[in-house]
Amino acid sequence: MTEGFTLWFTGLSGAGKTTIAEIVRPELERRGRKVEWLDGDEVREHLSKGLGFSKEDRDANIDRIGWVASKLTRHGAAVIVSAISPYIDARDQARAMVEEHGTFVEVFVDASVEECARRDVKGLYEKAFRGEIKEFTGVSDPYEAPANPEISIESEHEEPQESAVRIVELLEVRGLIPAAVAA
Amino acid sequence: MTEGFTLWFTGLSGAGKTTIAEIVRPELERRGRKVEWLDGDEVREHLSKGLGFSKEDRDANIDRIGWVASKLTRHGAAVIVSAISPYIDARDQARAMVEEHGTFVEVFVDASVEECARRDVKGLYEKAFRGEIKEFTGVSDPYEAPANPEISIESEHEEPQESAVRIVELLEVRGLIPAAVAA
Repeated sequence: MTEGFTLWFTGLSGAGKTTIAEIVRPELERRGRKVEWLDGDEVREHLSKGLGFSKEDRDANIDRIGWVASKLTRHGAAVIVSAISPYIDARDQARAMVEEHGTFVEVFVDASVEECARRDVKGLYEKAFRGEIKEFTGVSDPYEAPANPEISIESEHEEPQESAVRIVELLEVRGLIPAAVAA
Repeated sequence: MTEGFTLWFTGLSGAGKTTIAEIVRPELERRGRKVEWLDGDEVREHLSKGLGFSKEDRDANIDRIGWVASKLTRHGAAVIVSAISPYIDARDQARAMVEEHGTFVEVFVDASVEECARRDVKGLYEKAFRGEIKEFTGVSDPYEAPANPEISIESEHEEPQESAVRIVELLEVRGLIPAAVAA
């Protein structure tokens, strides 16, 4: 049985979590890992239908993702989670559940609110600044940065491709994926 | 990668689902399978907190269990689900999700309401008959029996040990677990 792990991307909306994870994913597959991507939208459709964005609902959402990630980790999956997950306690509880069965790798994708708002890929920051979205992380809702993530990405100063390479190298060093085979 | 499957026990409260599943589980482990038991209480604690027993909430509960079972099946787990799961449509949707990645084995644990009420292990039927529990399956809420389960257990006429043996044999015949090794 291959050792399972969960690669948990946390950060503001627009920080680059999904962009980087999308580059990491096929590299894990090339190295023989079966990946389970716990996609935010799919999770909200199945696991967390009806939950909103209060602290309580956000915590419940992260608890469910963490619980499922923990089960999948137990069965040897390479789990990728991409979720704002703004609260330290909720992330740490997810970590504790996963670590019962494998390795938890927290990836902090760090970018300032100003930069995320400048990119504003989904037009959400504009709405949040106008007060049309309540409880928007970084604008009208808190984001608690990780104190000790396994890896920090400053996405304002690094290209996604470089960040992905650093993450893959970390997984390799930790023995979670085999070294790349020369072509 | 071993082929994943989900063994889904459906039937009334008190029909014997958990009793039989508890005998099957260690036998699967003896045959080298890593089992994931999606236990009703644990599911209600993590996945389905806040859901009640209306048709809509029951369907949501089964959708979540089916979704998680499907992911685990994809990663080669031997998943055991023990859930009343009274509605055909919800069970069939769970089946469809699981069959994208592996095999779904529906185990219908059949016992009459009268027999389940006679056993009344948890004292729930008495309360249901007195009207103290609303929406109690078999008493004040429907149970839709499977038309074509992979296996039917008449728990009024068969000991749990015999039922478990028949289930294990079925899994063996289907190639989902290796044959028993003689001691």
